[in-house]
Amino acid sequence: MTLDPYGLRRVIAPAGALPQRADRLDPGLPLGEDELSIAVEALAVDAASFAQFEGAAGGDPERIAAEIARIVRERGKLHNPVTGSGGMLLGRVRAVGPRHPAAGKLSPGDRIATLVSLTLTPLRLDAISAVRPEAHRVECRGEAILFATGLWARIPDDLPERLVLAVLDVCGAPALAARYVHPGARVLVLGAGKSGALVCALARERVGGRGEVVAADLSGAALDALVAAGACHRTLHLDATDAAGTLEAVIDAGGPFDLVVNCASVGGTEMASILAVRDGGTLLFFSMATSFTAAALGAEGVGKDATLVIGNGYVPGHADLALDLVRRSPGLRALLEARYAR
Amino acid sequence: MTLDPYGLRRVIAPAGALPQRADRLDPGLPLGEDELSIAVEALAVDAASFAQFEGAAGGDPERIAAEIARIVRERGKLHNPVTGSGGMLLGRVRAVGPRHPAAGKLSPGDRIATLVSLTLTPLRLDAISAVRPEAHRVECRGEAILFATGLWARIPDDLPERLVLAVLDVCGAPALAARYVHPGARVLVLGAGKSGALVCALARERVGGRGEVVAADLSGAALDALVAAGACHRTLHLDATDAAGTLEAVIDAGGPFDLVVNCASVGGTEMASILAVRDGGTLLFFSMATSFTAAALGAEGVGKDATLVIGNGYVPGHADLALDLVRRSPGLRALLEARYAR
Repeated sequence: MTLDPYGLRRVIAPAGALPQRADRLDPGLPLGEDELSIAVEALAVDAASFAQFEGAAGGDPERIAAEIARIVRERGKLHNPVTGSGGMLLGRVRAVGPRHPAAGKLSPGDRIATLVSLTLTPLRLDAISAVRPEAHRVECRGEAILFATGLWARIPDDLPERLVLAVLDVCGAPALAARYVHPGARVLVLGAGKSGALVCALARERVGGRGEVVAADLSGAALDALVAAGACHRTLHLDATDAAGTLEAVIDAGGPFDLVVNCASVGGTEMASILAVRDGGTLLFFSMATSFTAAALGAEGVGKDATLVIGNGYVPGHADLALDLVRRSPGLRALLEARYAR
Repeated sequence: MTLDPYGLRRVIAPAGALPQRADRLDPGLPLGEDELSIAVEALAVDAASFAQFEGAAGGDPERIAAEIARIVRERGKLHNPVTGSGGMLLGRVRAVGPRHPAAGKLSPGDRIATLVSLTLTPLRLDAISAVRPEAHRVECRGEAILFATGLWARIPDDLPERLVLAVLDVCGAPALAARYVHPGARVLVLGAGKSGALVCALARERVGGRGEVVAADLSGAALDALVAAGACHRTLHLDATDAAGTLEAVIDAGGPFDLVVNCASVGGTEMASILAVRDGGTLLFFSMATSFTAAALGAEGVGKDATLVIGNGYVPGHADLALDLVRRSPGLRALLEARYAR
């Protein structure tokens, strides 16, 4: 049997597409030697996708469940055709193919979450038992397939499950930032949400005594929470869609930073990010609202020689890095529990 | 007088915007101490913008000229309101402010091209003498302002002007690639157009005897031209919008590459690029059709730990690097002259 690390054989249509771009997947094929099968317990639906389901169903959980069941039946995956997004899932390992990378690491019954999008995960649903709008969560029974390249994380016993899911959702951000935060660095984090908080806490640990971590956000309350959590040295209360205003605040704060990490939840913050980084510095974009051309042309337009990095959500060891960060930072854990795991 | 490296004082509306996002600039203010003024000779209009002007004017050069004159009069810059794009300009230095970075390097009368977009360059037009549709070029008289952060390049005497402009247009690509091409590396360049050709030639020089430079394109003729120019070791004739097909070709060519440089002129090539780079490798995106989310989520979806870099058009010394590359590569020069400077 040939290996199929990207799941090409499960694509029904269109021919030659990868699973994420496919219209339809086949979750019913026999398990491949390099595949892993999961007994699904719950779907954690992407926020944009859940909002669309909720709107279209008038907020009725029954109708949301029916729509999700219909999509999964038709597409072989929970790939919202309107938003194009998916989410992740939780369940227990059912079987591990002998040539899957998790062979020997995972056993049937182990509880895991998938870290690849539901938009590329072959899925069969047998029953939906509950829809929980407050958590964008669907309790269900079914089976999902992970390819050899599909990322997963073991659900630990020592942290609340909803906290774990909230952290896993953005665990790539602190893990990638860890490669760029050097002792003594001045780091600016734009956006004090979940990924911003994790990046701040990680950077705060790594810059050491001579470095500085500054958090910026439009919300004073979000900044106060970061300070209370001990996740940053200073804060800047600003609107990062206002490039000139951000530049002024950055100059007042001591000038451009060695590293700027954009975790903003809104668009139009590329230029503020570019003005805030020093020549020779690095800018990591984790905001999904980032415009490629605004970043590329913006840096050229102001002659800024900074390395502009697209925030790849995968870094080896990212789940453990983020969960360990939360374990050893009581302030960060309290902040995330208050915000995402109540 | 305070310095104004980003030209904020020339923004008329909206207040607080940077020049590129502004509706209107004021080209008429007295020259600032850190500004440079240019006696404009020609505008090299961006291809997308010129096509729009041409379409709206039914191809009539007189009407194209009138529309360009109207926009510059109203906006104080040649910022096409439909396409959002601009272009660059040529002219002779009129005056250099004593605190502009070019003070002491440029003198009145020196012939230069601007390397920042016309969308952020304050401009006054006094007369348009000719519109040359075949070159997307407007011969004119007027005055333009460069801020301290605005990039420029001296027009050399030893190369044809149209060749120089064609090279300057994409000079950031080989200059940024130069930072990532190491001796012995295997490099894949997607797209055999102008920037692809320059990146191939640069990489071919730098990988040394043990390295390999492979060019990929949908056009066999474009690939043949690169081979004839001696700009690459091998070619792959493929459609980079077909990720699965590209993966197959890459495996046949010896497996994933250390460095992939995306210079494609079409969209939808992110996943092919990601599959073509090895774990731990680097992917440079120069295609303006790149989707940020397709790149970020695509890499995560297949668990690829590659560094994804946005092709910043500015790298110090980029103009000289690219022009020198053309000077010492007769094959590359012939290719570019045949294609862009006839």
